[in-house]
Formats: sequence, structure tokens, C-alpha cells
Amino acid sequence: MNVQVAVNGYGTIGKRVADAVTLQPDMELVGVAKTRPNHEAELAESKGYPLYAAIEDRIDLFEEAGIELAGTVDELVAAADVVVDACPSGIGAENKSLYEDHDTPALYQGGEDADLVDTSFNARGNFADAVGADHVRVVSCNTTGLSRLLAPLEAEYGVEKARVTLIRRGGDPAQSGRGPINDILPNPVHLPSHHGPDVNTIFPDLDIDTLGLKVPATLMHTHSVNVTLESTPDADAVAELLEGESRIFLIPEGSDIDGAGALKEFAMDRGRPRGDIWENCIWRESVSMEGSDLYLFQAIHQESDVVPENVDAIRAVTGAADAEESIARTNETVGVGF
Amino acid sequence: MNVQVAVNGYGTIGKRVADAVTLQPDMELVGVAKTRPNHEAELAESKGYPLYAAIEDRIDLFEEAGIELAGTVDELVAAADVVVDACPSGIGAENKSLYEDHDTPALYQGGEDADLVDTSFNARGNFADAVGADHVRVVSCNTTGLSRLLAPLEAEYGVEKARVTLIRRGGDPAQSGRGPINDILPNPVHLPSHHGPDVNTIFPDLDIDTLGLKVPATLMHTHSVNVTLESTPDADAVAELLEGESRIFLIPEGSDIDGAGALKEFAMDRGRPRGDIWENCIWRESVSMEGSDLYLFQAIHQESDVVPENVDAIRAVTGAADAEESIARTNETVGVGF
Repeated sequence: MNVQVAVNGYGTIGKRVADAVTLQPDMELVGVAKTRPNHEAELAESKGYPLYAAIEDRIDLFEEAGIELAGTVDELVAAADVVVDACPSGIGAENKSLYEDHDTPALYQGGEDADLVDTSFNARGNFADAVGADHVRVVSCNTTGLSRLLAPLEAEYGVEKARVTLIRRGGDPAQSGRGPINDILPNPVHLPSHHGPDVNTIFPDLDIDTLGLKVPATLMHTHSVNVTLESTPDADAVAELLEGESRIFLIPEGSDIDGAGALKEFAMDRGRPRGDIWENCIWRESVSMEGSDLYLFQAIHQESDVVPENVDAIRAVTGAADAEESIARTNETVGVGF
Repeated sequence: MNVQVAVNGYGTIGKRVADAVTLQPDMELVGVAKTRPNHEAELAESKGYPLYAAIEDRIDLFEEAGIELAGTVDELVAAADVVVDACPSGIGAENKSLYEDHDTPALYQGGEDADLVDTSFNARGNFADAVGADHVRVVSCNTTGLSRLLAPLEAEYGVEKARVTLIRRGGDPAQSGRGPINDILPNPVHLPSHHGPDVNTIFPDLDIDTLGLKVPATLMHTHSVNVTLESTPDADAVAELLEGESRIFLIPEGSDIDGAGALKEFAMDRGRPRGDIWENCIWRESVSMEGSDLYLFQAIHQESDVVPENVDAIRAVTGAADAEESIARTNETVGVGF
């Protein structure tokens, strides 16, 4: 029988994960839970996704808005084999007892603390750690992007030390209340930033220091990457290695893709849902070696790169497939790879 | 007799250098040259700076605009002991023969090629190299900022390797035609960027790799800095060293200065002309050591940090003072230091 999947939280990540789940031959979407009857609740209804109230005393609001409910989040979790918690940061932790009450394995997003769960998760980095686990955290968009990059580098060349500056988008396109406007903010100011330790939840022994800033852009994050390798391959060899990774897109030279705007245009032109870019986007021209120092730029689509990872994590916790099989199936069904 | 200084080009840099020259007890501003009778030409006139036409066949335009001219740029250069060329990138090179014809020492800005001149210049880095030189390039805002930071680190601890990501403002506040809007552009995409070799025009033996990006901000550049030192001081010692540099401002913790906007507010509140910030602005909280790796963030005001450097370069080429004396005099008269 197919895995019955519930999605609790139908916002930026939840709505994408729900769509991806419906594309899986070995999964069924039981339903999605939402706190408010807004335009996204209407979207779930129009897609035929059973909609559950995430907060019991708000059921009236949905009725008033004319949106039909299938029940409450408690009933949703009860009906599921796995729940994907895609609630805002911190709410996942509050929901944990609900999942425990039903003895239902749960996936959380990267905004939750690493110590909330049995293991953090990246499909390319540590799929096996999540097999059979009850509580798993799919790491953030940035950590996902770094893990996908560092896994093959570590395996092929060894990583002596990684130093990464994360030039972060200030907010998502629809987050109209966020900033900065016309500024460049060291954020966090304290160094090294928490992003490095977050990568260590996937690769505990990797030596990595990170620095973060926020800028007035909404489309994607950009990473300025330095990795001191334990050997000295040439840049072409590194590019070839990265080219072979299914969730890395090497932006060809001469493609006139100069930034996130062009990347999104590229993705939308190719019919990607919501213009999503599930892959790390690495500028081929930027890939360079100075001695044992690798340098490159990569762009990360904060709204969608964790979507295939959530699908894989469902298979990991249910033991439905191993890493290679799951990644291949997710990629094929979702459409990962340009 | 005081040094007679001409400023050719009265735009972003030129108008600031002209003002700074008038504050020097050992200099006199002969006049400024301008190509067009715009609002900045009117400013020069209102300040009583003799105005010269940079292009002979445009004299009529100034007359039509009712702006009085003192002559042409050729006459300006003839009357000067030193000329500061503050024309747009590339125009300085075209002007070189004019300065040679008059046998007048000339300073150029960082947009010109390093091989145009006898030496590139940063007061803290290599003042002595410019003493008596005929053609000197005052390095760019970013290279100036990096030179001021690296000089004391190299002298005190030794620099094994520097790696810097430059998150660059897309354009100055008045450059309404520039971008990006809502994007983060690797720029240049090719790595390492040309900024590292530019630092090598000041410190030929320093090992430095740089990466550059452009973002939708206009106020200041921001540098994400890593310097692997040859020793392992603690962060407090490094902060104390930097605190002792007259053209570095260590932003105190708890000052609520989170970015360039707050820095400019801080400068304007303190009566700085045009809100200029001549100093490197380093967040004290960001200064940190991981083993022998120093990390920090610094903001660089692209419109003004080279102004005191131009004043010092005038003294260097005329042999009017040594580095220490010149820097102290410039700082005091201009008002460097918060």
C-alpha cells in the first residue's frame, strides 16, 4: 500500500511538498492542514486536497469563508503514515507532541532546532541516518545547498576547510513586510555564523566557517564559496564532478544567465511550477582553482530546493527505498534536472 | 609657497577632493575643470572655485548657461604644481599626454590601469613609493579599504592568505541608470576577481583571492573578510590593533549600527559633509578568530574613502611631507576619525 502522507502547514514549503507528493507513485496525499482560510486554502480546495483545520477553534473561519474542511489536524495525523510539518519556524517544535501522541513519524523543516529530532537530513549527504527514524529535520535551503556541494567534494578530494559567505535574499517575493531596502546587512554580525554548525548536523567532522549577510533581493540566495581541498584537481575536473550530480545545475558559459532573475526566467520558460529551481545553480565560469583552493558562486532557490529532499525523507523514515532509488524516483517524477 | 593643485573632473571624487584641498594649510586650489555646465558646475561657481572648461569646444555651453569660466583645462594644468585627475575611468589615460606636455605631476583614480602610472598608491600601504613620482594612481575605494586593513595585519601578524568576498553596491545614490534591481549578480563571474591583483599593486607579495558580487544597494560596499594569519592572536588583540588605525572605525557593539544606512545616518548626524565616511567601518562584534583564521565584516563608502588618500598623494609626489606627517595633517584638517 502507498505511503499515506499528511502535510501540516500549507505555505511556501508545504504547498510545494504536497504537489510533489501527489506525483509520487508510492505515496498518497491524505490532506493538508492550514491555520487560516486564505488564498492558499482556496488553492488546496481547488486542487482537491482534503483540507484540515490546523487550529480547532478556527473551524468557524473556514465555514464563514465557504471553504469545506475534512476535519482537524488531529484527524489528519491519525490518518497518515508520515506527517511533513511545514509550519513556520518554532511551530514544528510545538507540534511534536501531537505526532508522538499518534506515534506518527514526522519530518520538520530547517527552521527547527537540530536537537528537536533524531537526525537532520540531506538526501545526498546522510540519507541512511534517517532510515526508520521517528523525528527528522530536513535542513534549510542554504544547508541543503551546501550539503549537496560538499558531499561530492569531500568524497572525491577531501575537504580541508570550507569558508562560505552567504549573500541571503531579504525575504521571499511575497513577504512584503521584510527588508532590507537599499542596504547590505551583516546578519548575523557575530562570526562565524550558525550556518556552518548547521552543515555539521549533516557532516559532523567537516571544518566549515560561514558568514551571512542580507541584501534587498527576493529571488534566490547566493553563496560565495571557498573550499580548500586536500588535493589539487584542475577546475575542469571539479566542474565535471559537479556536472555529474543530479541536483546541481552547472550554468553554461555564454547562456546569458547573470543572476537570479535570469535563472528564474530560465526556469519559468521551461514550465517549472511556480518557476521553482530545485537544483543548486553553479556558474560554470566561476568554478576555479588557485592551488588547493576551489572558488565558485552558487545560487539557491530558498522556496523550493528542499522539496525533493522532503520527498526523499518520507521514503527514508518509512524505509520505502534506499538513497539512490529514492533520489532517482523523486528526480524523475518531480522533474529535477534541466 | 603652498602647493598649487588643479582638479580635473568635478564629479563624485573631484568635488570632494577639491573641498579637501581647500582645507589644507599647505595647498591651494587653482581651480577645477568640468565638461558640462550642470548642477555641479554651478556648485563650483558658488563655492568660488575657478572653473575651467575640460573640453574646448564646449565653452559656449557654459556661456549659454551663464556660468563664468576662468579658462580651459590646458591653462588650469599650466598653472598647477600637481593635477588630480578625477575623470571617469579611462579618461584619465587620455589626459596623460596633457599632463606630460606641461611636465606636471598627475594623480589618477583607481579606474585607470595600473600600468598607466609609475606607482599605485595607498597612504597606509606604500606612501614612500610615490615620493617624487610623476604619475600616480590612487587605488579604488575597495582596494583602499583592503589596503588599510591588510597593512597592519601583515606588519603585526603576517598574512598567510587573504580571501575576501566584495558585496558591492550596484551604483552610487545619484546613478539612477544602474542596477541591479532585486537581484544578486556574481560580478565578475570569473574567479578570482581582479580586486586581488589590484591589492597586489600596493602589496606585491601578498597572497589574496577575491570574489565580487553586485546587489541592489547604493550606500556602501561591504566586504566579507577572511585572513589566514601567520600567528594566532585572539580577537580582542586584533580589534585593539585595528582600533589604533586612524582610518579604521571600529563600530562599537550595542550602537544599533546594523548596516550602511545606519552608518550614513551616524555620519550625517555628526555633520559630515555629504554624509561622507572616509574610514573603513568594521563591525567590532564581527571580528573573530578561528584558529589562525580572522573573520570580519567591513563597510566601505565608495564615494569618499579615497579623498584623504588623494590629499596624501599630493604631498607624496611633491615631497611636501612624509607618510606619518601627511596622514596626521589630512586627518586633522578633513576631520577623519569619529
